Order: sequence, then structure tokens, then C-alpha cells
Amino acid sequence: MKLKLLLTGNELMTGDTLDSNSAMIAKMCLDVGIQVHYKATVSDDLNQLVDEITRLSLASDVLIVNGGLGPTSDDLTAEALAKALNTPLEEHPEAIKHLLTWCAARNYDMSDANRKQAILPKGIDIVANANGSAVGFKVKFNHCLIFCTPGVPHELKTMMAQEILPEISAFLPGTHQPKRVRFRVFGFGESNLQERITQTFPNWPVALELGFRASMPLLELKLKVDHQKDHALLDEWQAKVATLVGGHIVTADERSLAKVVVDLLALQNKTVTFAESCTGGKIASLLTEVSGASEVFEAGFVTYSNAIKNSLLDVCETDLLEHGAVSETVVRQMLSGALKASGADVGVSVSGIAGPNGGSPEKPVGTVYLAWGSQKSIQARAFYFPGNRNFFQKIVSALALDLIRRELLNIDETPVYFKERSSPQKN
Amino acid sequence: MKLKLLLTGNELMTGDTLDSNSAMIAKMCLDVGIQVHYKATVSDDLNQLVDEITRLSLASDVLIVNGGLGPTSDDLTAEALAKALNTPLEEHPEAIKHLLTWCAARNYDMSDANRKQAILPKGIDIVANANGSAVGFKVKFNHCLIFCTPGVPHELKTMMAQEILPEISAFLPGTHQPKRVRFRVFGFGESNLQERITQTFPNWPVALELGFRASMPLLELKLKVDHQKDHALLDEWQAKVATLVGGHIVTADERSLAKVVVDLLALQNKTVTFAESCTGGKIASLLTEVSGASEVFEAGFVTYSNAIKNSLLDVCETDLLEHGAVSETVVRQMLSGALKASGADVGVSVSGIAGPNGGSPEKPVGTVYLAWGSQKSIQARAFYFPGNRNFFQKIVSALALDLIRRELLNIDETPVYFKERSSPQKN
Repeated sequence: MKLKLLLTGNELMTGDTLDSNSAMIAKMCLDVGIQVHYKATVSDDLNQLVDEITRLSLASDVLIVNGGLGPTSDDLTAEALAKALNTPLEEHPEAIKHLLTWCAARNYDMSDANRKQAILPKGIDIVANANGSAVGFKVKFNHCLIFCTPGVPHELKTMMAQEILPEISAFLPGTHQPKRVRFRVFGFGESNLQERITQTFPNWPVALELGFRASMPLLELKLKVDHQKDHALLDEWQAKVATLVGGHIVTADERSLAKVVVDLLALQNKTVTFAESCTGGKIASLLTEVSGASEVFEAGFVTYSNAIKNSLLDVCETDLLEHGAVSETVVRQMLSGALKASGADVGVSVSGIAGPNGGSPEKPVGTVYLAWGSQKSIQARAFYFPGNRNFFQKIVSALALDLIRRELLNIDETPVYFKERSSPQKN
Repeated sequence: MKLKLLLTGNELMTGDTLDSNSAMIAKMCLDVGIQVHYKATVSDDLNQLVDEITRLSLASDVLIVNGGLGPTSDDLTAEALAKALNTPLEEHPEAIKHLLTWCAARNYDMSDANRKQAILPKGIDIVANANGSAVGFKVKFNHCLIFCTPGVPHELKTMMAQEILPEISAFLPGTHQPKRVRFRVFGFGESNLQERITQTFPNWPVALELGFRASMPLLELKLKVDHQKDHALLDEWQAKVATLVGGHIVTADERSLAKVVVDLLALQNKTVTFAESCTGGKIASLLTEVSGASEVFEAGFVTYSNAIKNSLLDVCETDLLEHGAVSETVVRQMLSGALKASGADVGVSVSGIAGPNGGSPEKPVGTVYLAWGSQKSIQARAFYFPGNRNFFQKIVSALALDLIRRELLNIDETPVYFKERSSPQKN
């Protein structure tokens, strides 16, 4: 079955808006086993829209038109579809009813601009929009099922999930019943996790699809089967893969790493602190993006200079001179000082060389020391992440959160982080 | 003149990669006065590519094909173009020369995969790629000038700027000589700045294009004329607009707000500190994303709880109880404490309610107090930014940096920030 997309919007043509809707549609469709075959994008131009609707309907089983349902004069999808169908526009009673309910619930008066959203090609069917004022609509034309959908992402997402996917899934064979599992993993690049899985399981079952999606700093690993008869196979292999990936699995849901850490801390009734040099506040910032962080986080320290490491965190001046700020001795003392000053139960400290300047032959740009743990037991280790400054700060901040996660879960295994980048000798 | 784009890549069809290349091409073309008229996107499928190259070449003056120039087997652009042109593939001497130079400079051996990048349709011309191993190429077909370009964004960008734009600009009338000015502005939304300009200058000249681009947290304001005869007009109005927008102009180049602040601090040989509650380290993190931040920044404090505000920054316990943590008294003391503990010359402190919880009728979610200045003179003020937690943290962090910028530049005017959101009474 052939599914094509037609996207409309001047902002997509000028580059002012990145097209994320088509990516969302593609991913949601792939999840039920349907590939998007083609995408066309046009500006808000009536003739172009009419031409493309006609052309694409002739060569597709399903056409999803996205955008142009709004209340302003450059929203032309309904008019273009009417022209393509050679049918008049008229006020659609269900669409008006939806608009009235929508406005009443929000205490708005319905404006003429709103009312325009109910003027639709004669003979179409309404597609419910649970999250917005503009209904979607559908019609069969040239043997193609055309859906017209809103450009607002959360409206589109709900309409896809609740209305469109169930309907277009009927195009698939009856035995098609996909089931999938996702893991969010930290510490592997796509290629090295792929290699590890392939080497461990040379007899990977054909019916089981293995997929990856980079979602920096996490990597999403997806297992999927398409048919009811393979659901048990999925369960069996999900367990095998989980065992292999082990403590690297951060979550099997959609939470961020920071959210997982906040939830773990809250569950264990613990507080956390950070002493940051080269990450400059990013670890604290990631944690406090999570609502509820105030329950588990009281104090963070951004100690860029040696003098401040000494005055704020009580790092010994002689050790700073002797070992340098980027050293195991110093990160241990930074963490110890931060735990004492904050009264937190657990913490991480970081000192490294983010670059582009400040490297040396012994400690090149990308070298970083982290210490983690509690007053009772502090561990420390050097890591190496060459690359640009922003990449370095992002990956090290995520690493800090992951080390706290492992600490809280008592994961014993020694983590292998991004193995090809772990040694300053190698790159 | 009609310019169309053809994008190729499985990752664009599955939604794994957002298409940012077409937005980049569109913006660069608009800057020289050319609009992109149409975009098609296909997967790495030879037949689809051949069909689309043929179809689009029949209806365009210029067609830019993007992607599919790489060394792997799913990079099919050269093969597809050869099929469309009905011409054989052959090794192109200039392309091989480029590859050899490229590999030699990096001490690589040229692999067979690399060599594939020099096998191109017979009769095409090379388009230089200053930043990558794969050359671009061009050919005239069906009266359409076709450019094939690399998918790697920085390779594409340089090729567009150095090779393609100069060539396609020749399609424009000879009088076409665009000149433009950009300002990056903080403190206005697009609609209120547009309104302010329209109201102040009711007789805006027709030849002068006014444009905006949201580049959160900054707003880019663009003035542009298309012809040599209007260049003086641009200069004249640039000055008028600069006077109107005044201290809100952060920069006329491409620096970030944080970079502007770091540069100002370095120039004045000053250091800065931050005492953050609701922004949770984000202000420090923004500053330290800038290379060179270590010259001007020694210490930052993330003080989430009242106890830590007292122990770390010496905020008076009675004042915390009496006025609450989100108050002018407390932010003044936070800043004073941070300046003392860090020894910094200037600083900002922040305390507010990021939400979604923690609001009250007197201090709803979105309320925030900032204090800024030096030991000699501290100013403080309340602001109100309702919206979600992430928006709040971003806008308040940028505001903190902007207040430091104004402090360093001795800008006297009272800033009007995002006027429609500045009062808790209004929303």
C-alpha cells in the first residue's frame, strides 16, 4: 500500500519552520508497519495545492495532507480539495457543532475566522480533532483515501493516533498485529551496540526487527515483530537483549535520564548535589528541568577556578598545584566538599578540559575526571571524550547523571561507556 | 525563475532525521532574493529518483538535488542522474583528483568506497566541495540547471555560498543587488516589535523589506533592499530602526547573547557570578558553553532550598520566612552573598516559581525576582513569565544574561521586556 504526504505552509518553504510533522507522521506510521513512500511540500498557493492533491491522489492508496486548516486567509486546504474534487464548499454541521462546543468550553465568542474552519468541501467526512478548533476531514478520490490534518503538532499527533492509524491499518493484511518494545540506553553508540548484539546473537530471528534511534545522549533500541504469531518470540528476545545490555538500560518508557534520576532519588528519599567545573552548571540544569527536582536537590556548585574550588569546596591548594585541577585527587575532594556543604546524600563532581583550549599532551582536550558516591564511599575515574566543546559538555553531564543512577540502583558491573572513545591513547 | 528541491534519504522518510538542509537552502536563497517553489522528498530508491529528477527538471529553471552523494551502496544520486540523462557513468578526472588530495591531506588510503564518489554521469561539470570528499556536480537537462549536492550540512552550506548562489543569482535581473542588515534583539516578541515599528513609522518605504525570525531567546530583525539604488535608503533606515529598538539590540552579528556577555566581560576585565534558584544552573551553563568563559567566570551557586540560601549565600533566615524565597529582599541578599563568596565584579541572582507546582494567588507560577549589579549598586525587579517550566527557565536565564549586558554597557533606559507578559495581573 502506498502512503504519500503533502505538506503545505509558507513557513516550510522559507525555512523559518523545520518540518517536524512529517517525521512524526512517518514514525507513527512505521510503528504500525506502514512506510511513507513520498513527501511533497508546497507553499500556501491554491493552484499548487490543487495540482498536487490531484497528482498524488492518482498514485497513492492514502494521501495525508498536513497544514492549511487554520482560520486565516492563507489556510487553503479545504478550498484546494474542493477544487480538486470539483465540488462546492459548504458549512458542515458536525464541524460547526465541534466549533461551538470548543468555543463554549473556553468562553470564547465564535468569530468569523473560526467559522471559516467549518466551511468544507461538500460530501467529505469529518475526522475528529480532540485538541483543536479545526476538524480534520477525509474523502475518497481517484481511489485514494485523502486525509486533511491540522499543522499544530499535538493536534496532529492525537488525530493520527486516535483516528487515522486505526483506519489505515485496515489496509494491511489481517495477520498484521505489530508489537514492539523500546529501551532507552546510555553508554553505547549505535554502531557499537549493533555490533555487540550481532556478535552475541549470530542467529537473530528473521521475524524480529532490530532498530536504533539516536536521542542524544540516549540511544533508543527497538525490538518489533509484525504478527500475532511472533509475539512470544518478542517476549523471549526482549529478555535476552535486556540481559545483554544490562545496566546500560536507563528506562523502558519515555522518561529522560534526568527524570529517571529524580524519580529514583524521590523513591529513596535522598538528595543529590553536584560540584561542576567543565560542565559549568549543565548537570544541575538538566536535573532542574524536571518538575519535582526541588524535592531531591538543594544545592549545586559551579567552581570554575582553583581559588573557588578551595574556598567553596575545601579542595587542598597543594593538591591543586601538584595534581592539577583535572585529576582524581581533586574531583574526590570536590565531591567530598560539596556533600559536606550541601548535606546531600549522594553527588557527582566533574573536572575536565572542554576545549578548544587548555589541553596538554598528558591531558588532551576531552579528558575528564568524575567522582561519584556518598560520604561513606566515593569512586572516581577518568574518561576521554574528544570532540567539540558542546558535545563534550552534553555527554559528560549525561554521564554524571548516569553514574548517580547506577549508584542509586547499586549496579555493580563496570560500565563500558562509548568504548571507542574511552581512552586518550586511542584517538 | 522557478527553483525546486529534491531531497533524498531513507532517514528523511522514516522520520529519523529532521530535514534541516532544505530550510538552510531556502534561507540562503531568500537572502539573495530567490524563493524555493517546491520540495519533494524520496527515499534512496533508484526508480523514484530517476522519475522525480525527470519530472522536476521539466518544470523548473533550477533543481537542487540534496543527498545521496556518499560512498555507500544506498547513495544513488549519480546513478539516478545518469539514468535520467540516458548517459553512462564514468570516473571523472577532476573528482578523482579532489579525492586523492582529500585523502592525502588526512593521511587516508583511498578506498573503493571513496572511489565510487568519483564515478559520475558522463558530461556533467564538477561543483567544488571545500569541506568534504564528495564533489558536487551540475548539468543542464530539459532546460533546467540541475545541481547535485552533499547531504552533510556544513559541506552543503559552503557549496551553496561559494558555488551555487553566485551561479543562480545570474538568473535574477541585472539590477538585483540585495543588501541586508540583521539585528539580534532581546526583549520583544515578533508581534510586539512589528507593532512598535509599524506605529512609529507609518510611512515605511515600500522598497525596504522588514523581516523577523524567532531565534529563541533572541529575535532576529532583518532589513533588506533588493537593488543598488536603494542601498542608501537601507543605511538611513537602519539608523532609524536602531534608535527605536535601542538597548534591546544585543548584536548586529551572529553571536549568542552569552557570547556577547563573555566578550564584554573580557574587554572590561571583569568577572561574573550567578546565584540561581529556579533556573537551576542554566545561566551558568549558558555562559560556560562559550569557549573562553573561564576567563570571566569563577563561581556559580545553585541554591534551591532555603537552608542552602542561608548557609551558602548568607541570606537572612528571618527574611526568608517573612518575605518568602521569591522576593526582592531575598534576591538582593542572594546576589550580595554570591558576590562576596566569589569575589566577582558583577552578578545576577534569581528566585522564582518555575511551576507547574508551587504557585499561590499572590505569587502565581511564572513570578520571578532578579537582582543584578555589583557590590556598589544592586538593582532588583519582579517579572512574570507564565508558560511551561522549560519556557520559563529559558527566558529567565536569557533575561539574567541580558541584565548583565545592560549593566556592563551602562544602558540607562528601563527595559520593556515582552510587554504582554510582564504583569501577573494581566494573564
